[in-house]
Amino acid sequence: MKATAFTVEKIPLIKPGDNIGQLISERTELKDHDIVIISSTVVSKSENNIRSIRDLPITEKAKNIALRNNIEPEFAQAVLNEGIEVLLESPFLLVRLKNGSICVNAGIDHSNVEGSDNILLLPEDADESARKIKDSLFELTGKKVSVIITDTNGRAFRIGQTGAAVGIAGIIAMRDWRGTRDLFGRVLEVKNEGVVDELAGFANLLMGEGDGGTPVVVIRGLEMYHESYGIRELLRPENEDVIRKALRSLSA
Amino acid sequence: MKATAFTVEKIPLIKPGDNIGQLISERTELKDHDIVIISSTVVSKSENNIRSIRDLPITEKAKNIALRNNIEPEFAQAVLNEGIEVLLESPFLLVRLKNGSICVNAGIDHSNVEGSDNILLLPEDADESARKIKDSLFELTGKKVSVIITDTNGRAFRIGQTGAAVGIAGIIAMRDWRGTRDLFGRVLEVKNEGVVDELAGFANLLMGEGDGGTPVVVIRGLEMYHESYGIRELLRPENEDVIRKALRSLSA
Repeated sequence: MKATAFTVEKIPLIKPGDNIGQLISERTELKDHDIVIISSTVVSKSENNIRSIRDLPITEKAKNIALRNNIEPEFAQAVLNEGIEVLLESPFLLVRLKNGSICVNAGIDHSNVEGSDNILLLPEDADESARKIKDSLFELTGKKVSVIITDTNGRAFRIGQTGAAVGIAGIIAMRDWRGTRDLFGRVLEVKNEGVVDELAGFANLLMGEGDGGTPVVVIRGLEMYHESYGIRELLRPENEDVIRKALRSLSA
Repeated sequence: MKATAFTVEKIPLIKPGDNIGQLISERTELKDHDIVIISSTVVSKSENNIRSIRDLPITEKAKNIALRNNIEPEFAQAVLNEGIEVLLESPFLLVRLKNGSICVNAGIDHSNVEGSDNILLLPEDADESARKIKDSLFELTGKKVSVIITDTNGRAFRIGQTGAAVGIAGIIAMRDWRGTRDLFGRVLEVKNEGVVDELAGFANLLMGEGDGGTPVVVIRGLEMYHESYGIRELLRPENEDVIRKALRSLSA
């Protein structure tokens, strides 16, 4: 098996209303079944998910968390406003979002957004954002591609963030190896593989960060296209989530 | 930026004593600064980390865990024997290994190993294994390559395993973006990036599982070579590990 991966160069700074699909299709020639991987930052900007935190009413809870975590009260408040459940208050804020995903600081970005009072929220429905970009790319190029929107996440037990998928279209989130046979003919008990996160991680590596960062990566040569969308099957159900349970018992 | 990735084809079933570096170098032409990513399964087999669990003396603790988790007592015992600390007994066994890494079932593989009483342990010192393969590849080819040995790990909050690095040589585990500037010239507070896990994840995707699996992947075109080795900096120190703390409080 062979794959190539490349960054799409010269994507300009994204403004609200920008057509991401068009910006990509003007800068690279896509092929059928390419996997187009896009940083959530640029998707959020195009969707105008920028908020000012200057005049946010601050609760006592946010003030308290800000003090403990050494962050701005306005930022703590913005995170609390985005989360529908707080799983951990300190040493960092870990919340569950409306779409079910669990992330540090609600995935809010304080860097790479113009204006020091401004923050950037994750796309409100990143699966839907991915689907729209996929459709737009099909309209513009006639090519059927998969789209993955990424963020970076921390991990349990290990330092270092890695890319993760927050919204997908044209690809299935997981590959299920159960029922296939091992090298000695026995049926594998194993296991779902979080393939869209493996793709997101590698793309994140190519994207880089900071002012040299490039927010779009294309991975070519893998046959993973599928007419489906949605990240939800990747989210661990609450009753199977022992780490969530443990974090709750810690706060209790 | 552009990278290519390919599987090394026709690697035979590995036997104890096999020279992994030689098997790779005979099947592909490596270039300087290639990243050679190898499944821990084949490294372990070459190092003869196969153990029979048939006659393992079973403790009451192992019997109890086996019953709760619906696994074989011998397997539970083997996991307990490998772990120096048990972080979670049920619904799955999560232990810390001698080398500091934390993994489900101590990373023991029950598939893809000949003989139904046999299990495959992780390489005893996977960093050292990676260094030896790197040195062997240099001797055989004159090329300086990075080596990453991978396993698959579960993740917090998300279903689906992903590839992760368990041993590395010729590459630095993390990329540190702190101090670089964002698109608007502000200094990034962000963050270490677990690049070797991002590489391991993508390689895992290419490797596949089961009898069609190929255990060696080469990634070419990324300039990440560094004369260093060791995964340890990637392991979260105990005093910063809130999930570990939470899991302990759950068992207490």
